[in-house]
Amino acid sequence: MPTDKDKKLLLDPFGTTVVEDYDRLCKEFGIELFKPLLSKVPNPNLLMRRGIIFGHRDFQRILDAMKNDGKFAVMSGIKPTGQFHLGTVTTAKEIVYFQKQGATAFYCIADIEAYEDNRIPFERSEKNAVDNVADILALGLDPKKAYIYRQSKETRVKDLAIIFGRAVTLATAKAIYGERHIGLYLSALIQAGDILLPQLEDFGGPKPTVVPVGVDQDPHLRLTRDLAQRFRRKYKLIPPSATYHKLIKGLGGSAKMSKREATATLLTLNEKPEIIAGKISDAFTGGRPTIAEQRKLGGIPEICPIYDLCMFHFREKDEDVVKIYNNCKSGKLLCGEHKEQVTDLVLKFVQRHQRKRQKFLSKAREILRVD
Amino acid sequence: MPTDKDKKLLLDPFGTTVVEDYDRLCKEFGIELFKPLLSKVPNPNLLMRRGIIFGHRDFQRILDAMKNDGKFAVMSGIKPTGQFHLGTVTTAKEIVYFQKQGATAFYCIADIEAYEDNRIPFERSEKNAVDNVADILALGLDPKKAYIYRQSKETRVKDLAIIFGRAVTLATAKAIYGERHIGLYLSALIQAGDILLPQLEDFGGPKPTVVPVGVDQDPHLRLTRDLAQRFRRKYKLIPPSATYHKLIKGLGGSAKMSKREATATLLTLNEKPEIIAGKISDAFTGGRPTIAEQRKLGGIPEICPIYDLCMFHFREKDEDVVKIYNNCKSGKLLCGEHKEQVTDLVLKFVQRHQRKRQKFLSKAREILRVD
Repeated sequence: MPTDKDKKLLLDPFGTTVVEDYDRLCKEFGIELFKPLLSKVPNPNLLMRRGIIFGHRDFQRILDAMKNDGKFAVMSGIKPTGQFHLGTVTTAKEIVYFQKQGATAFYCIADIEAYEDNRIPFERSEKNAVDNVADILALGLDPKKAYIYRQSKETRVKDLAIIFGRAVTLATAKAIYGERHIGLYLSALIQAGDILLPQLEDFGGPKPTVVPVGVDQDPHLRLTRDLAQRFRRKYKLIPPSATYHKLIKGLGGSAKMSKREATATLLTLNEKPEIIAGKISDAFTGGRPTIAEQRKLGGIPEICPIYDLCMFHFREKDEDVVKIYNNCKSGKLLCGEHKEQVTDLVLKFVQRHQRKRQKFLSKAREILRVD
Repeated sequence: MPTDKDKKLLLDPFGTTVVEDYDRLCKEFGIELFKPLLSKVPNPNLLMRRGIIFGHRDFQRILDAMKNDGKFAVMSGIKPTGQFHLGTVTTAKEIVYFQKQGATAFYCIADIEAYEDNRIPFERSEKNAVDNVADILALGLDPKKAYIYRQSKETRVKDLAIIFGRAVTLATAKAIYGERHIGLYLSALIQAGDILLPQLEDFGGPKPTVVPVGVDQDPHLRLTRDLAQRFRRKYKLIPPSATYHKLIKGLGGSAKMSKREATATLLTLNEKPEIIAGKISDAFTGGRPTIAEQRKLGGIPEICPIYDLCMFHFREKDEDVVKIYNNCKSGKLLCGEHKEQVTDLVLKFVQRHQRKRQKFLSKAREILRVD
């Protein structure tokens, strides 16, 4: 594991990383800024417009594909360790967005990673997988233009991992993932297989592929891009492109909403409304200790998970977010009032989502071939 | 990799190990001596009778199975990196022996290991695999009572490797295999999957399994026995038993005939008779610098690869070997004369074998589903 000294520079895709300075990350790891490309993106989604997608690798290649023959893929996935929460919703929305722009979508249920990293047995992750797939279908993924699969059932991904194994030294594995058990390294190879799966002949051969992920997943991308390069003669693989989004804060104020954190800080899509309302009510905010101080100094939206809910998901119009930001900064909008507004929006969304996903459960079982 | 200091104690299954003192090995690694069990073995083969099989783990369990319901398996394999040579023939003969004693035989073509460890692409190892399977069929393996497969095509083995990955720490992997690339560790997990495959429900569930191997393969066995123990609740696995044979010397006098050594020191089953005769003629022996000295002092069969040919393979009768040993020791038998005798025996065997294997090639292709 990284030492405390390394922690700030070592992005850990398997843990909960504190990411304070996205610009610095870009410089350290050679991630390009997304902003200069924004004007060229057709129908940019709110994550792009708001700078939540702040970085990329080789995204120009995707823009070119969109403009020309339109043959490209979007690939991402979820570890079936529990319910969809608002962090995973960010990725899901990006997949749906790129699918709408013409990409073939690949959605991986990373049950091998859930097993190796989180010790979730396959029997248990199967149930989560069905829930997760129903969620992404309810969020708008069109299953007719998508390949949705579990790692544990996808021989081609395992075989790519075997092929790649020869090219990953222990030093590389340790530099990226720290000192871990062999299964963890294996699951990293398998994830590289997932990312390159869309380029196999079975799926029409090499093509630009965009992988929308939280920035903490960049180590996987770097490894996979390196492997694509090393095996280019055998498979003619195009190094995958990536977009990186900022991480939505946990309701306790942590830098990343994550299933590894206390459930009180996690908003999932499948909780009872009263539970959700309670969690928002109890959430950390960027507010001041007293109302008087807040009126005088204003709040700090930059550290506020309630503000993040608006930024990432629950305010469709950019101008509404700007208004909230300014009203918070000026001391006009207090946390209690804002929490009430946000609770209404979240509950409205969640209730509609829950009705939709209920209808998709049998479809999800069919896709995953689960009885 | 092991330092020079460690080398004597660290058995390296992936390299060519110098093994000078089998008794010491038994003590170091807890291998039991085979000799005390010999009298209980039904129809012991020449390898057992001559102490070539010198050690075991839990072989009593196999003896019990032979005596009682007879439900047991024999499991071993070959890396398809080239042709069958006399080292691999030793293992093959043991598999055939146990099959004749009632075991279901499992024969693994370790093409993933050949890829990860020896960089042999699957396209190339496929051809070797067909040859290797034809060889073992010609050596007497009954395909009707055997499961012969390639690792790369056997999903159940890969899935066991994934299951086991979680339980193998980096420290364990490094202690057994040294500092290697991730693919090498993966192939070790896969080999554990091979060894435990006979115990899956698809093959009738848990059963005693004997793994006849060269002693340099013991690290795989130790790892696999440990994994069987750790996953006993999930799979009810019985730790595999093993028999260990001494390694036949290379014709250059090295401790192990191996495909990693110069081809001149390697006797394969599929060479032209004149090549084989030439290799034997050029081989190192336990002889003295001059005939006069040899007549006076006698030869040293213990270091002689020509003597090993008789011990391991080409003298069916034990009394013939004893006679050769004594005639050599007493200076009566000179190396030139002995080489001629052995050349005749080897060529007779090889020519008959080559005719037989030719007939088994199409069967081998059928078994491996190769066009």
